[in-house]
Amino acid sequence: MRSHYCGHLNESHLDQDVELCGWVHRRRDHGGVIFVDLRDREGLVQVVFDPDNPENFAHAERLRSEYVIRVSGRVRRRPEGTANPDLPTGQVEVAASGVEILNASETPPFPVDEHVEVGEETRLRYRYVDLRRPEMLTRMKLRARVTRALREYLDRNGFMDIETPVLTRATPEGARDYLVPSRVHQGEFYALPQSPQLFKQLLMVAGMDRYYQIVRCFRDEDLRADRQPEFTQLDIETSFMDEESIMTLMEEMIREVFAHALEEALPNPFPRMTYAEAMRRYGSDRPDLRVPLELVDVGDVMAEVEFKVFSAPANDPNGRVAALRLPAGGELTRKEIDDYTRFVGIYGAKGLAYIKVNDVAAGREGLQSPILKFLPDASVAAILERTGAQSGDLIFFGADKAKVVNEALGALRVKLGEDRGLMERGWRPLWVVDFPMFEWDDEAGRWISLHHPFTSPKEEDLELLESDPAACRSRAYDMVLNGTEVGGGSMRIYRHAVQQQVFRILGISEEEAGDKFGFLLEALKYGCPPHGGLAFGLDRLVMLMTGAASIRDVMAFPKTQSASCPLTRAPSAVDDRQLRDLNLRLRRVPGQEG
Amino acid sequence: MRSHYCGHLNESHLDQDVELCGWVHRRRDHGGVIFVDLRDREGLVQVVFDPDNPENFAHAERLRSEYVIRVSGRVRRRPEGTANPDLPTGQVEVAASGVEILNASETPPFPVDEHVEVGEETRLRYRYVDLRRPEMLTRMKLRARVTRALREYLDRNGFMDIETPVLTRATPEGARDYLVPSRVHQGEFYALPQSPQLFKQLLMVAGMDRYYQIVRCFRDEDLRADRQPEFTQLDIETSFMDEESIMTLMEEMIREVFAHALEEALPNPFPRMTYAEAMRRYGSDRPDLRVPLELVDVGDVMAEVEFKVFSAPANDPNGRVAALRLPAGGELTRKEIDDYTRFVGIYGAKGLAYIKVNDVAAGREGLQSPILKFLPDASVAAILERTGAQSGDLIFFGADKAKVVNEALGALRVKLGEDRGLMERGWRPLWVVDFPMFEWDDEAGRWISLHHPFTSPKEEDLELLESDPAACRSRAYDMVLNGTEVGGGSMRIYRHAVQQQVFRILGISEEEAGDKFGFLLEALKYGCPPHGGLAFGLDRLVMLMTGAASIRDVMAFPKTQSASCPLTRAPSAVDDRQLRDLNLRLRRVPGQEG
Repeated sequence: MRSHYCGHLNESHLDQDVELCGWVHRRRDHGGVIFVDLRDREGLVQVVFDPDNPENFAHAERLRSEYVIRVSGRVRRRPEGTANPDLPTGQVEVAASGVEILNASETPPFPVDEHVEVGEETRLRYRYVDLRRPEMLTRMKLRARVTRALREYLDRNGFMDIETPVLTRATPEGARDYLVPSRVHQGEFYALPQSPQLFKQLLMVAGMDRYYQIVRCFRDEDLRADRQPEFTQLDIETSFMDEESIMTLMEEMIREVFAHALEEALPNPFPRMTYAEAMRRYGSDRPDLRVPLELVDVGDVMAEVEFKVFSAPANDPNGRVAALRLPAGGELTRKEIDDYTRFVGIYGAKGLAYIKVNDVAAGREGLQSPILKFLPDASVAAILERTGAQSGDLIFFGADKAKVVNEALGALRVKLGEDRGLMERGWRPLWVVDFPMFEWDDEAGRWISLHHPFTSPKEEDLELLESDPAACRSRAYDMVLNGTEVGGGSMRIYRHAVQQQVFRILGISEEEAGDKFGFLLEALKYGCPPHGGLAFGLDRLVMLMTGAASIRDVMAFPKTQSASCPLTRAPSAVDDRQLRDLNLRLRRVPGQEG
Repeated sequence: MRSHYCGHLNESHLDQDVELCGWVHRRRDHGGVIFVDLRDREGLVQVVFDPDNPENFAHAERLRSEYVIRVSGRVRRRPEGTANPDLPTGQVEVAASGVEILNASETPPFPVDEHVEVGEETRLRYRYVDLRRPEMLTRMKLRARVTRALREYLDRNGFMDIETPVLTRATPEGARDYLVPSRVHQGEFYALPQSPQLFKQLLMVAGMDRYYQIVRCFRDEDLRADRQPEFTQLDIETSFMDEESIMTLMEEMIREVFAHALEEALPNPFPRMTYAEAMRRYGSDRPDLRVPLELVDVGDVMAEVEFKVFSAPANDPNGRVAALRLPAGGELTRKEIDDYTRFVGIYGAKGLAYIKVNDVAAGREGLQSPILKFLPDASVAAILERTGAQSGDLIFFGADKAKVVNEALGALRVKLGEDRGLMERGWRPLWVVDFPMFEWDDEAGRWISLHHPFTSPKEEDLELLESDPAACRSRAYDMVLNGTEVGGGSMRIYRHAVQQQVFRILGISEEEAGDKFGFLLEALKYGCPPHGGLAFGLDRLVMLMTGAASIRDVMAFPKTQSASCPLTRAPSAVDDRQLRDLNLRLRRVPGQEG
């Protein structure tokens, strides 16, 4: 029905007859002539209807915003002085010789342009209008380009695209499963996968060697923050490769994707950092390296001070006392400091001590702080020296359980980076490695896996597995980009005995392990190769690449924070007959409580 | 961990030191030397352990089938007379200088070779062993190659890969939905999509222009025949193209996929056939053109015979009397004819009349048939002439409602083609077009859509829509390959009024339409372009291409006929707590009936 896309026309098409299809983006009547900006997926072009052709002109007069039309005409240069340099097609226009209205449109619920002021609920309800906006279209295009570049890289490197089931068995991997009642096996349920973790491991046992899949995953979590009930993962697994080779292959892939889809260069290689170093310097296992601030341990110089707020955590093996120097932070107002104090409170910090360094050469006299009086000269000197303080700086302190200090100062560090314009531009990827195998869960009173129960311990830490689980490191690795974990993975346990041992440490009884993971344990007995892999959060990666504020902005049909779809009105009530077929009934019928 | 894949070694690697990883496929001890066929994804190579290296040899003596090992050694030519021409690596072997056992294996539940005699349940329970078999591996590889070729073609032609939701709203499209209870919105349910039909139409309204997705679809059907609860569809939609352009683009894609993945050439162009012609000549809307037999209408010559079995359907506007000539069918025994009579009985045929043509030149005398006495000379002559009967042939007859005759003789035609070795080799694709919009459902007492309710009627049949629904043809098209529908699609309704009209004919009230399809009807008001598309059954396509007997053989982890997974034992019982979270309870607890 068309010869060209609107957005592709330029001076190379001058004097050509073209057929265009698209949407009326704007119509202006000027000097007895009608100008229509015609829009399709590739962009806009100006179409001109002049009154010399009365029938044509009459049709054009009926055009309204978002009408779908087909236009025939000839490409010509825009008259002197009317070219639009902001538009790729801006040097030309199409003199219409014919127009056909393919479909009319009511006035859209909001305008199709760059900046929408409407609420997200409305945007999602009319997603088919929202997606017409250039920035949404650009994101969808970039997403398609990213998945294509990923696939090309993986295909070229011998990875096989293999599909795994969506209707599968509940595997407890932390979050809550979505369940699907079985009609054939009444009283039984499938679960939607949180990830294809066990299937991809079985594919390695099957000898597939290199597997990938771009796959939907599901978590029935409470949707705080930027979560979605279903999200997309680039899932990868390989056999007979160690973590070094896997990380090298994967960062090469990400570099290639950024080069192909964004034409941006990432560092080669990505820096590596141990979990321990990341926590010490950034208070986070996904440090944003664009922020040039670092935490500095000052526990040793606080251990002897009389001020219990500092000395207690300094002497607690699970405590931490750390400083964070903010260059030129002396400018902060009292109110700003109060705001930051409230901010770290979100992370459980009970306060936010600080020292203003007015004149670093003047000793105590040059400092200003409510806590100064508690600190002996030696401690003050050590702090100034260790943080590298300059006149005009401000030093924040965290002193608490290490977990609280890390989370509070780690978050404060990033917030200061943003608020104070300290963020470097560009992409700062890194690998975080040497994670602990386990962390102690106070609530559950047992060890839990920091990654998942199939993660292999480091060979040299195998003997710590039972003797000192806290000290045992795993063969896990996370790819972090600008403070976001974009991918995570590990070498997996491939020996039956080690897997059993890890289940035991996690407090999973033999019976429970057999019931839930029996098929994995059995597979490990039939020739399981050494293997490992990782999974990338595709939505999050594309969100970072497009600069979108939410993963919802890089999904065609996302759900709201309450996991519903304003467009289709899912979820919805179903017939009682359907429930009967499934041998189910509601405990409480909505609207009939009590 | 390795330098080469086992299956890649050949004479170009002579005298090279290599590192290999893989599975012990077979071990033979011969003349004091141990031979191991080492297997990886790419194939087998022979590894030789000789007793000169005692430590090495001692390790090799421990090797058993399916052990996972790493071998270092040097590639050398096999000794004179021991080359294996059936193996790509058969000219060479690897003289092992080192071996490491990476993992042991228990004796596998069945041998890893071409021909397995074990039941499918066992194969699925140990799928990770089953997938090691060369024929399964080949299918998985071909499947990955097919999806890659499809994607490459579509990417190159401007189709955008866009993901649509899996947790969505129930849309009644024939089959039963899988439901997913919502925890947040208690008493409400998501449905898993039977296809992304409405989403892809909305993407066209959104201006995406060309969309594709390789996407999982779900149907909770009774799993007769070769169905799976979840299956994969290549889903495609375009705007501003008519059916001719779409069919051209799509058959080009399929030709390219066959060329790339199988190196086989399909005809160009694919023949087109109307639904009416397909039913008349083949009794089927997915005719297998490899079978050189055709149905021939003989209703007119039977209309006046006294034999009611023929004359009644010949005079019934919904009846059909047809003949099917089987060349050299005179050879059929009485028992074989009885078997075919039982076979057509499956399709509702009450009998299977026939005439044996012993000598076509001898008139009645040359024929042999229980029905001959009912047929006047003129009818007999007409039948012989019209079927082109030759001496030695046999002519079968069907006489009943057209539906029964078509199904019975259509199936008989294909069965005769198989049984009698009449099938042509190769690929015989075609397009079937000009389907009826509706068929009358006796049980429901209303018209139902032959495709789905969003299929557009032909422009020239628009006025028949209400006046004569049976005569109204749709703009649907099916791609048929060797008797299997591999893809189907249509131009969609893009005008609000036409969609409402079609809903009305289907007996869908305005309230019901608003409730179920309100969002589609609303979208049609905001500038919906003319659009159409289709969907290919990927599993079925790959099944045809690999010659597999079932779609289960081209899926990594399929379910059984009772929709369960013997490997993971899904579906399974869940905690009562999980049900409480979902506000659900079982009506009857299994094992506690009555």
